[in-house]
Amino acid sequence: MLRQHAHELELRTRGRGFYEFTGEVAALVAQSRIQTGLVTLHLQHTSASLLIQENADPEVRRDLERFFSRLVPDGDALFQHTCEGEDDMPAHVRTALTTVNLGIPISSGRLALGAWQGIFLWEHRRQPHRRPVAAHLIGKYTGQTRGPRAFLASLESGAAGF
Amino acid sequence: MLRQHAHELELRTRGRGFYEFTGEVAALVAQSRIQTGLVTLHLQHTSASLLIQENADPEVRRDLERFFSRLVPDGDALFQHTCEGEDDMPAHVRTALTTVNLGIPISSGRLALGAWQGIFLWEHRRQPHRRPVAAHLIGKYTGQTRGPRAFLASLESGAAGF
Amino acid sequence: MLRQHAHELELRTRGRGFYEFTGEVAALVAQSRIQTGLVTLHLQHTSASLLIQENADPEVRRDLERFFSRLVPDGDALFQHTCEGEDDMPAHVRTALTTVNLGIPISSGRLALGAWQGIFLWEHRRQPHRRPVAAHLIGKYTGQTRGPRAFLASLESGAAGF
Repeated sequence: MLRQHAHELELRTRGRGFYEFTGEVAALVAQSRIQTGLVTLHLQHTSASLLIQENADPEVRRDLERFFSRLVPDGDALFQHTCEGEDDMPAHVRTALTTVNLGIPISSGRLALGAWQGIFLWEHRRQPHRRPVAAHLIGKYTGQTRGPRAFLASLESGAAGF
Repeated sequence: MLRQHAHELELRTRGRGFYEFTGEVAALVAQSRIQTGLVTLHLQHTSASLLIQENADPEVRRDLERFFSRLVPDGDALFQHTCEGEDDMPAHVRTALTTVNLGIPISSGRLALGAWQGIFLWEHRRQPHRRPVAAHLIGKYTGQTRGPRAFLASLESGAAGF
Repeated sequence: MLRQHAHELELRTRGRGFYEFTGEVAALVAQSRIQTGLVTLHLQHTSASLLIQENADPEVRRDLERFFSRLVPDGDALFQHTCEGEDDMPAHVRTALTTVNLGIPISSGRLALGAWQGIFLWEHRRQPHRRPVAAHLIGKYTGQTRGPRAFLASLESGAAGF
């Protein structure tokens, strides 16, 4: 039987930069015991982004930051919305150029990410922020392919499915 | 039990600009009576975008339009695909730089959007267009957590679940 | 009853450019016999993108490539991550500017794409690459709206649902 789980991840940033939270999402998948399914992540702000990028060489992320800083410079005279600081409107543009939601399949009980893919929150504001991410998981439990006994075991262990 | 609903939203634009339809999507969620689940929206064109952005200060959206107009100027001599007008190829580029599909969790019977997030159709063409958006909802009904009586009530009220 | 299917598509590229695989995804939908539901596609690399774009005039895609080549030039002196070639960091930036995952509703047994929309892998590297795409399908079988007889028929034909 298909089950679903919902969570809110509370991410905190220390200003502009990349914050990997692949481990937090992988932990939700492991807790859910979903073997095959889908995770959807939605960031509840529009001055930061969700991004799947290379998690090997950190220079890749520094170059991403360099490119976006050049493409959408803070304090650009083009912008009229300046009341929240010279980095606010660039943050909204960077978010429009990337995304705030991701959908990632679950396969064999794990996120179906590539070997060098990580899930990042990209903070575009210079100040620290609290960035809640809504997470939705749907799929089938491992145990349920093993029949009613496994199903009972999953109930007894306090699975948070609903 | 998990249920799903499918709809087509018929959006009409009056030329380049942002058209918020958060209310229309929220109405689909309310009608569905899904308490926890997922909404997926897919725009069936590639010269307009779906975007989650700030719905507070309208200057933010005007600045987004200013930035994209400068980044991808209409009539740019770089483009060879000019047969549909000087704003057509820029519209395709703007769409590639943003997106045509969104996935948003449903939590406590509501879209799990942030306090200042709105769902927008961003029309990139100068002329008015008809822009259909396919919507898919999946999740669990409110009533079903209250047992068989609520389930019967949902059937009687003509729920469009399938 | 809702069912789901998971697949891995093995795409191979011959260097930078667009590779349409709408037909391969449509075949997964047809095989699944899902009438109403959702397909999620996730590319397991970050130097290529998934993109829904116009599949009519190929000049549109050549112009997209022209625009991105100008916006993110190979060998840009800005980049420090150069150890994998002068086209590697631009490939990561192009991927950040587009996306690696798509969610597309299934309606009446078909992908709910617009008349001129195609699903493309956009290879950003100059050399040929192997690009696996994880696919997840969820929804209801056609046959199940016709009762137990259709359901048995679907089992007999070896459906890979789980």
